[in-house]
Amino acid sequence: MGYPIIFDTDPGVDDAQAIAIALTHPDIELLGLTTTYGNVDVTTATHNALLLSELAEHPVPVAQGAAVPLVKTRHPAPAHIHGANGLGNIELPDIQSQALATSAAQFIVDTVNARPGEVTLVAVGPLGNLAAAIQLDPGIVDKVKHVVIMGGSIQEGGNVTPVAEANIFNDPHAASRTLTAGWPLTLVGLDATHRCILEPADMARIAAGQGALGPVLAGSYEFYRAFYQQARGFDGCCPHDSCALAWLLEPELFATARGHLTVVTEGIAEGQTIFAPEDRQFADTRWSRTPMLEVCLGANGRSVVDWIVDTLS
Amino acid sequence: MGYPIIFDTDPGVDDAQAIAIALTHPDIELLGLTTTYGNVDVTTATHNALLLSELAEHPVPVAQGAAVPLVKTRHPAPAHIHGANGLGNIELPDIQSQALATSAAQFIVDTVNARPGEVTLVAVGPLGNLAAAIQLDPGIVDKVKHVVIMGGSIQEGGNVTPVAEANIFNDPHAASRTLTAGWPLTLVGLDATHRCILEPADMARIAAGQGALGPVLAGSYEFYRAFYQQARGFDGCCPHDSCALAWLLEPELFATARGHLTVVTEGIAEGQTIFAPEDRQFADTRWSRTPMLEVCLGANGRSVVDWIVDTLS
Repeated sequence: MGYPIIFDTDPGVDDAQAIAIALTHPDIELLGLTTTYGNVDVTTATHNALLLSELAEHPVPVAQGAAVPLVKTRHPAPAHIHGANGLGNIELPDIQSQALATSAAQFIVDTVNARPGEVTLVAVGPLGNLAAAIQLDPGIVDKVKHVVIMGGSIQEGGNVTPVAEANIFNDPHAASRTLTAGWPLTLVGLDATHRCILEPADMARIAAGQGALGPVLAGSYEFYRAFYQQARGFDGCCPHDSCALAWLLEPELFATARGHLTVVTEGIAEGQTIFAPEDRQFADTRWSRTPMLEVCLGANGRSVVDWIVDTLS
Repeated sequence: MGYPIIFDTDPGVDDAQAIAIALTHPDIELLGLTTTYGNVDVTTATHNALLLSELAEHPVPVAQGAAVPLVKTRHPAPAHIHGANGLGNIELPDIQSQALATSAAQFIVDTVNARPGEVTLVAVGPLGNLAAAIQLDPGIVDKVKHVVIMGGSIQEGGNVTPVAEANIFNDPHAASRTLTAGWPLTLVGLDATHRCILEPADMARIAAGQGALGPVLAGSYEFYRAFYQQARGFDGCCPHDSCALAWLLEPELFATARGHLTVVTEGIAEGQTIFAPEDRQFADTRWSRTPMLEVCLGANGRSVVDWIVDTLS
C-alpha cells in the first residue's frame, strides 16, 4: 500500500466523494476516518462516515472529534449547500456500525505514534481535530509523513467571505495552530479546487461504478449542483475535498509554491490565509515568522476531475 | 478642457511621470497639486511637485498636506525605491516657486466648492489629504465629479505586505475614510498597474519629448528600474500613478467591477482592501455595508503604456 492515511472530514457532499476515493483507490491504505463539525454537526458527520464505509463494504475505524471551534462560536452549518443531513437531504439507509470510543485527536496521536514516519493526515474540514492532536502530543509533528489540508485561498478570494475559505473561517485558531505547526504540509485551497469542475456526465460515470454508494453520491451531487447553479452560475460542482487526495497521489497536476502562511484569527479578514512566498521580500518580517510550507496556486482542473472519475468508475 | 483635476501626490518616481502627464495632456486641466508624505517626507514631496511644475514651464498651485498618517505611526520612506530625494537621487536644480499657505485639505475643499460637480480628485499616495478634506467639509462628497485612487489590491496580492499595497498600508485609516465616503470612486490598484510595464525604450521616447523634464524623468527612472530588476526580476517599471490618469482618460483600457470595499485597519492584514463584488453573496453582510464603488481588476497593459508614451513624447 503506497499511502497510509487518516482522513479527517465533515461529510458533506464533496467529502462523500473523497471518502469514496479513500475507500476505493488501491494505493490508499485508509487507517481511519476522523470526524468534525463543519458542513454538518459532528454527530451527523460521524453517521455519514460510518454509512459511507458500510455502503462501500469497506469497514474502517471512525473516531468522532470536534463539535465546535477551539475558541470562537460555531457558525450555522450550511444546510443550503450540503442538505441538513449532509448528503443533499436524500433518504439514507440505517447504519449498523458505530464510532470508536476514542476521540479523533487521540486516534490521530495513537495511529501516528504506531507508525512513525509513515502516516499522512488528509484533513478536509475545520482543523480542530489536528489542533487537538498537537495539544495531546506535540511530538506527532515530527512523526507524520505529511499533512494535506483542503482549505484556504491564496489569490482566489474566499467562498464564505471575500477573503476566507469555509474550513479556515470555521475555526481560524485551529487552522493557525495546524498550519503553523512546522510539520511537512501542503495546502490545497480554492486556487486549485476552483479550477476543477465535476460535471453531471462525470457523476453519471461515478454513480454507475460505485455500487451501493452510487445512489448516495449521485443523489447528494444533485443537491450540491443546484447550489452551484444558483450561487455560482455554472452546471457542476467543485470536488474540493477530492482535490486533497488528488494532490497526494498525482501532485504533478498542481502548481505549487513554498513560503510562509499566516492565518488571520480576528477582525474583518478572519479566516484569511496570508501567503508570503519564500522569494518575495516584504516591508516587515512578521509575515515570514511562520514555518515554511507548500501551497497550491493552481491545478490542471480537467485532469484532476478525470483522475477522480477514473478512480471511482 | 475635458478634465479639471486636483492631483494628490507624494513624488516619487512614478508620481513624477504622472505629474508630467497631468501637466502635458491637452484634455487635463490641472487645478493644483496637493502633496503628502509617502514615497518621501512631505516637504520633499512639495519640493518635487514645485520643481516638476517649473521644469515643465507650467506653473500650478501646490498645496502641502499630510506629514504623517491619521492614526498610526509613520513607516520609513522607501529610499531604496525612489531615492532619498524621491527622484532617484539624481542631482536636482534649485527651485524658485513656493507652495500655497493653504493646506492641501483646504485647497481641495475650496477648489471643489468653487466648481461643484466639475472637479475630479486623482490621488496616488497615502490618502490623508482626502480624509482631512472630508473632515473639513463632508459636503464635498456630493460635489466632486469623481475620485480616482491609485492604491489597493483585490486579487493581485500586495507589494509591501502579502496582502497590502503601499498607499493603503501607509495610512489605512485615511484609506478607509476615503474609500467608504460614498462619493463616485474608482480604485486603480495593483491588479491593473502590475499589468503595465514601462520599458527602457519607452522611457527613451519620453525623455526625448519632455524638454527640461526629460533628464529628471529618465534619471529617476534608472534608479527605480534597478529596484524592479533586483526585487521583481524584470527590466522596466510599473507606472502605477500614471495608470490613475490613464483610467480617467481611457477607461476602456481597464477591466472593472462594482462592489463594496472594506479596508483592514488593524492586525496582520492591515492595509488590505477587501472587495465584495455586488453579484456575490457571502456568509455575513458585514462586507457589503460600505458604499458601492468601482475597482479595476485588470488592464490592457501595453495599451496603457503606449498611451503614457504617446502623451509624453
